[in-house]
Amino acid sequence: MAKQSDDSHTFTVNTCLQFSEGERDRIYMDYNATTPLEPEVIQAITEALHEAWGNPSSSYIAGAKAKAIINQSRENVARMVGGKAEDIIFTSGGTEANNLVLHTAVEHFKRNREAAEEREGRHNGCSGLPHIIASNVEHDSIKLVAEHLQREGKADVTFVPVSKTTARVEVEDVVAAVRPNTCLISIMLANNETGVVMPVQDICQRIKSLNKHPERLRILLHTDAAQALGKIHVDACELGVDYLTIVGHKFYAPRIGALYVSGPGTRTPLYPMLFGGGQERNFRPGTENTPMIAGLGKAAEMVTSNLADYERHMRSTKLYLEERLRTVFKDRIHFNSHYPGSEILPNTCNVSIQGPTLQGWRVLSSCRRLLASVGAACHSDSGNRPSHILLSCGVPSEVAANALRLSVGRGTTKEDVDAVVEDLRETVRLLEEIN
Amino acid sequence: MAKQSDDSHTFTVNTCLQFSEGERDRIYMDYNATTPLEPEVIQAITEALHEAWGNPSSSYIAGAKAKAIINQSRENVARMVGGKAEDIIFTSGGTEANNLVLHTAVEHFKRNREAAEEREGRHNGCSGLPHIIASNVEHDSIKLVAEHLQREGKADVTFVPVSKTTARVEVEDVVAAVRPNTCLISIMLANNETGVVMPVQDICQRIKSLNKHPERLRILLHTDAAQALGKIHVDACELGVDYLTIVGHKFYAPRIGALYVSGPGTRTPLYPMLFGGGQERNFRPGTENTPMIAGLGKAAEMVTSNLADYERHMRSTKLYLEERLRTVFKDRIHFNSHYPGSEILPNTCNVSIQGPTLQGWRVLSSCRRLLASVGAACHSDSGNRPSHILLSCGVPSEVAANALRLSVGRGTTKEDVDAVVEDLRETVRLLEEIN
Repeated sequence: MAKQSDDSHTFTVNTCLQFSEGERDRIYMDYNATTPLEPEVIQAITEALHEAWGNPSSSYIAGAKAKAIINQSRENVARMVGGKAEDIIFTSGGTEANNLVLHTAVEHFKRNREAAEEREGRHNGCSGLPHIIASNVEHDSIKLVAEHLQREGKADVTFVPVSKTTARVEVEDVVAAVRPNTCLISIMLANNETGVVMPVQDICQRIKSLNKHPERLRILLHTDAAQALGKIHVDACELGVDYLTIVGHKFYAPRIGALYVSGPGTRTPLYPMLFGGGQERNFRPGTENTPMIAGLGKAAEMVTSNLADYERHMRSTKLYLEERLRTVFKDRIHFNSHYPGSEILPNTCNVSIQGPTLQGWRVLSSCRRLLASVGAACHSDSGNRPSHILLSCGVPSEVAANALRLSVGRGTTKEDVDAVVEDLRETVRLLEEIN
Repeated sequence: MAKQSDDSHTFTVNTCLQFSEGERDRIYMDYNATTPLEPEVIQAITEALHEAWGNPSSSYIAGAKAKAIINQSRENVARMVGGKAEDIIFTSGGTEANNLVLHTAVEHFKRNREAAEEREGRHNGCSGLPHIIASNVEHDSIKLVAEHLQREGKADVTFVPVSKTTARVEVEDVVAAVRPNTCLISIMLANNETGVVMPVQDICQRIKSLNKHPERLRILLHTDAAQALGKIHVDACELGVDYLTIVGHKFYAPRIGALYVSGPGTRTPLYPMLFGGGQERNFRPGTENTPMIAGLGKAAEMVTSNLADYERHMRSTKLYLEERLRTVFKDRIHFNSHYPGSEILPNTCNVSIQGPTLQGWRVLSSCRRLLASVGAACHSDSGNRPSHILLSCGVPSEVAANALRLSVGRGTTKEDVDAVVEDLRETVRLLEEIN
């Protein structure tokens, strides 16, 4: 994957897709599951491993150097999402960031209720359980946390279903789900399987006018931007969210993450889940993972500088992929990532080749070159059942069963696309022959 | 730091202590704050960054490779602590591992109480709050969690004071603190400031006989082995603990950690704090940090293979350091890491040079070459107050104020020791001259 040309511009894609001998001709199209690391990112990590191993809390030079790297990364990550350095809390990953938001919302509710009781000597509208709103297509690190809180009797949860026409959660449906006790709305910015971009900005606008009501408990606004970052323009202030989840390994960075919080502990509440040595201003203690933070910062810097190029390249590659699939498979093709009026991530093509023997898992396990998935990687155990995400989006069960999630990356070429489509053609031929 | 000779043997110490131009003559003696990474560890991390970036949950080859590395690391880490691979849960670090243990103990208590109530239709001895026992010299990632639980009305906590003679928490004191509701005893294996090794094995033996009583809620046993691993022999089974905290960056590994749990979810309860994509058997979800896990595994393998050498080298270096300090400073020297009958980590020398102008922070900030600390790195903000750990161990306040925590590493040489002692001699002379 060296020099890369594109319709509109030429730029160098260096992403190092290393496969061992037998894998050389494999083509990776699962960039929504994880991405390789950019060489510049690996370099930043390696330099920090060698030179910035000091404890960032140490007052001498070795600590100061580590601290400087962490501060620089914090600025870079903040810039990527349109925030300030002090809005960034580094976490071990997106799962932790998402869990932290739901934990905070429940604490926020509890403390507000306690304060109101003290003030007024009675329960106000804030009595009962905290209420959380999410969509029904969130990642498990939102869905399962919410379900856990519900099961433990710690929160009520409404999973607002996405429209079966647009595959988006609709603004009016979210607003209609609001109750007096609603303390958090958490809607992903883009879905990992369909690539559908959710109307987070519109939701935030509507909720902010509700929040102006003096009697109302403030509804906190969160978006999990795991799949959107590095693919589309993301600005936390424009979106109007209080929290935004950042996941390194989806944008060619290492396996850590961060949580954007608009003024943590001042404008926006943030209650730690962990207690310890005071790092990250006590919001997330634990000796900082300097090398990984260095890598995250470098990757964020690259996104800030190159997003337009990345986006253009991925979009044109995906469009070419869709065109080739249509040409080869004609009306047997069904795109599970096409919905009227909905914006889709530039890299995501969720597609079913229709036919009784062409279940997604069967096609993928027979492909000689294509590496892709049928849905979220963390559901790879759930085997052969059709994706509940696609079913929620109105995809018929027999079509959903054949779904392939093809997600392209910064380095995917048109030659890769040609080879993958040829691989699929051959696989389909074989599968239909033997059955 | 190349070839290294020792009284008893010769081995190569490659730890790469890279300092920039102006720092070349600095000598690092703060290995209890953090360690550099072994070159083999950096190599394992770098290889994984390049070659094992696949999502370990993906079912194709790139995922399988990452999964294989993680499994190998799990075996290596298990072997280092005398456990089985399935006993190891990777975490983001020691802080998370410690928090997870206290969280689990409270849940364990709650579920036992609920089960007992259901069974017997009434409260049994298990009513009231769960009770946790820790020493009064634990790391903040135990101490502050316990205090938080106490403040929130979720647990009662007893901090058993260490003996002012031995600086150890004494077995009888721990046993005397046990109540009917005690659900956890958490005692660090070795203290980070004094290096004192705690009688964890004896405590476990005594508690296990209490646990045999059929009516009694099982008391869970935890040790935070952060400072002990890589310095002394650590075997979770010999110790008899249910949980043992593993912190990479204290034994030349990267900034992640692990929790040893003796049969997680079967023999020993473990309740997750985070919910998400099911990784680490749902005990700790989040896409695995493969490169850091690879590094942790490599570092663990090195400890398993070389511990005797590491220990012997550090001990002889520390003894030489103590001997030189005694020779130079004579009866002005006070060792805060010498206690009758107590075993001390082989690398830790906590020392005060007595004199009204020789406060630890003042000496360290005037030293030209020595890099060390006055106590735990995460307390570096707490400035010039004497360490509460040393005061708890019976060190007089004016002596504790002068404390320097000198901790040597695998690569510290006798020449380093000579230079540091010379640096201290010169610093003391200057400080006493100008005052």
